Amino acid sequence: MRPRVIILGCGFGGLFAARTLRGAELDVTVLDRVNHHLFQPLLYQVATAGLSAPAVAAPIRHILADQKNVTVLLAEVQRIDAPRRAVVLEDDSELEYDYLIVSTGVTHSYFGNDAWAEHAPGLKTLEDAMEIRRRVLLGYEHAERESDPLRRAAWLTSVVIGAGATGVELAGMMAEIARHTLRGEFRRFDPSNARIVLVEAADRVLPAYPQDLSEKARLQLERLGVTVWLGRRVTSIDANGVQLGDDRIAAKTVVWAAGVKASGLGATLGVPLDGAGRVLVQADLTLANYSEISVIGDLAVVSGHEPPVPGVAPAAKQMGRLAAKNILRRIAGRDTQTFRYRDYGMLATIGRNSAVGVLGRVHLSGYPAWLTWLLAHIYFLINFRNRLVVMIDWGVSYWTFQRFARVVFGPLRPKDR
Amino acid sequence: MRPRVIILGCGFGGLFAARTLRGAELDVTVLDRVNHHLFQPLLYQVATAGLSAPAVAAPIRHILADQKNVTVLLAEVQRIDAPRRAVVLEDDSELEYDYLIVSTGVTHSYFGNDAWAEHAPGLKTLEDAMEIRRRVLLGYEHAERESDPLRRAAWLTSVVIGAGATGVELAGMMAEIARHTLRGEFRRFDPSNARIVLVEAADRVLPAYPQDLSEKARLQLERLGVTVWLGRRVTSIDANGVQLGDDRIAAKTVVWAAGVKASGLGATLGVPLDGAGRVLVQADLTLANYSEISVIGDLAVVSGHEPPVPGVAPAAKQMGRLAAKNILRRIAGRDTQTFRYRDYGMLATIGRNSAVGVLGRVHLSGYPAWLTWLLAHIYFLINFRNRLVVMIDWGVSYWTFQRFARVVFGPLRPKDR
Repeated sequence: MRPRVIILGCGFGGLFAARTLRGAELDVTVLDRVNHHLFQPLLYQVATAGLSAPAVAAPIRHILADQKNVTVLLAEVQRIDAPRRAVVLEDDSELEYDYLIVSTGVTHSYFGNDAWAEHAPGLKTLEDAMEIRRRVLLGYEHAERESDPLRRAAWLTSVVIGAGATGVELAGMMAEIARHTLRGEFRRFDPSNARIVLVEAADRVLPAYPQDLSEKARLQLERLGVTVWLGRRVTSIDANGVQLGDDRIAAKTVVWAAGVKASGLGATLGVPLDGAGRVLVQADLTLANYSEISVIGDLAVVSGHEPPVPGVAPAAKQMGRLAAKNILRRIAGRDTQTFRYRDYGMLATIGRNSAVGVLGRVHLSGYPAWLTWLLAHIYFLINFRNRLVVMIDWGVSYWTFQRFARVVFGPLRPKDR
Repeated sequence: MRPRVIILGCGFGGLFAARTLRGAELDVTVLDRVNHHLFQPLLYQVATAGLSAPAVAAPIRHILADQKNVTVLLAEVQRIDAPRRAVVLEDDSELEYDYLIVSTGVTHSYFGNDAWAEHAPGLKTLEDAMEIRRRVLLGYEHAERESDPLRRAAWLTSVVIGAGATGVELAGMMAEIARHTLRGEFRRFDPSNARIVLVEAADRVLPAYPQDLSEKARLQLERLGVTVWLGRRVTSIDANGVQLGDDRIAAKTVVWAAGVKASGLGATLGVPLDGAGRVLVQADLTLANYSEISVIGDLAVVSGHEPPVPGVAPAAKQMGRLAAKNILRRIAGRDTQTFRYRDYGMLATIGRNSAVGVLGRVHLSGYPAWLTWLLAHIYFLINFRNRLVVMIDWGVSYWTFQRFARVVFGPLRPKDR
């Protein structure tokens, strides 16, 4: 019998792991709780109504259709039974494996204040993006209906919590919406009077970036009209606004980009986790106690890797490839390789034609950075279904049938069965 | 004070009524419970994952942004208080009018069996389309998980109820999905074995079309693999299938395209309605008792108009224009004009490159009919935001900000306030 490999999660880690096993004499099963692979770097564009959902997602089974050793199943995994080498699905059925790759990522963390989730959605999934988009757009609609100036101001005030790349990109886009997109579309107020506040606990935006780029990003955000509050921590969020110690912002649109925690599946492994629930793995991405299990992507903390591997798409991709290669090596009776993150830098856009980026010692900002971002994404995307052609295809997709609208929002719901 | 015109509903009727009032010395308020105008003829494409939702919808306030006498409000109207010349909104606030145009259309009718709605969604709104799409795609996902052959067959069986244009177009597309789109993407079954059953109570499909075209349509559907049941009436629908008298089809995906009833707002007018709840209007589209109120589109039945005005987009558009013109004439102290529907024919697609169409005495079928459909829609669309350019724009929309993803699915929800 051929070795059975199960891959949990078809984000960047899981997808590239599966791809690396192409043509191998194995049976690969890929499980995900949604039917699509999501290009997360562009999710903020969906959340700010810049792109339709199908533009940033593709059906997993369509991507992997040509890989005959792969079966794709839409499923939610309850837990991993490591001693028995099986995963337990939402209907209590089990799938056994010889090798397992866990790539289920992270979700939002409200630092224990889960009640905030209802008022401040995060941005991890398409459902999240649609919810944020809904709130951003409806805030203006409510403002047009509202005659009381204070209530209208609250509808026109948005708070983005967390000034990492996600928060910065969201805030920048929300400012563009207020100042450009909606110009002239309202009669009772000027949308450019909308207020976008970006709140960050650290003393600068983009804390993971070099200091000079943080400063440039902040200036650009302010040029766009974003109000930046640094060194401030949110103490409470409710349906009408955000509390920061003694200060309060009355805001009907609040977005959370301040913290993540690991997928709960990590805890079901019964192995050491870090403070955010991430799974500690060895240098070759496997578990110390279960060498047939690899954990990759945002869910993993690689022992001894300094600096720590960042929770970004290229890292997940590289880990996915290595974890898969190591399985092939083990089957061939060879030693596994250790993981070393190849850092291709970071880029964050700020509004529609500015960005900051760092690659090694090179710091980019402004329009050149944005151009780099654009080209990098096209390059990235070209490897992802040749999306440059896809973008042209959008024009002709009306006539063809292979398309980008096969996305079902959200995981399996109980009433689907 | 300038005359106040309120337009309820921004489908084809309401939109073109608003447009006809451009530049007039009036204050126009357009109300809709969703933020977008929907191009309904292509909604079946969204339901069958052929187009993304933003491709067939546009934000109302964006379309009307340049019309300075128009205010657009996202609102749900509870009722019309005709004696007081006011509309009552969902928050009990009121808006007064001097002239009112009611264009709120129709919704699904289950012939009194409202419990069927949960199992058999209809296709009128974007939310409907997304729900149908979800069910169509997840049916195949469930089939891939299912080991029991009978249960798998049920997941792979779809029933479309009603063989008017909507049902025919849906069934044709669903057959294309099974036979073309999903080819090679499943490991445990062949998607072309999926069964699509089209059920119709009348003795032919497309009962509103000439007999020869009905026959051609049926043949084309069968060529696509659709099973057509004529002269059959559904007696019950549940979570696992459809009952037709003594016969039962085990099907997990059921779509309703068999009946409509009028928007409930018509009944709040307190004037005579027909059996489906439509409002009887005079030849100039106004109410006998309230000459300042016009009712247009699918919601209206025009007295003395033979044959009856069909519930199609061009009719709503023509009625919208006339109702608006008549308001302008009344303000100018002139007589109103009577409505006469200018029939530009009907076209229904069957699968991806076939159609049937009729214009006067000309009957079209097959590929020439489909080409005509395509050109007609482009023409139609060109008047609708110059969509030909828009289709090319899809390719470049990544770089620009004016876009087609500003659609919020569904009406205002209570928790939005």
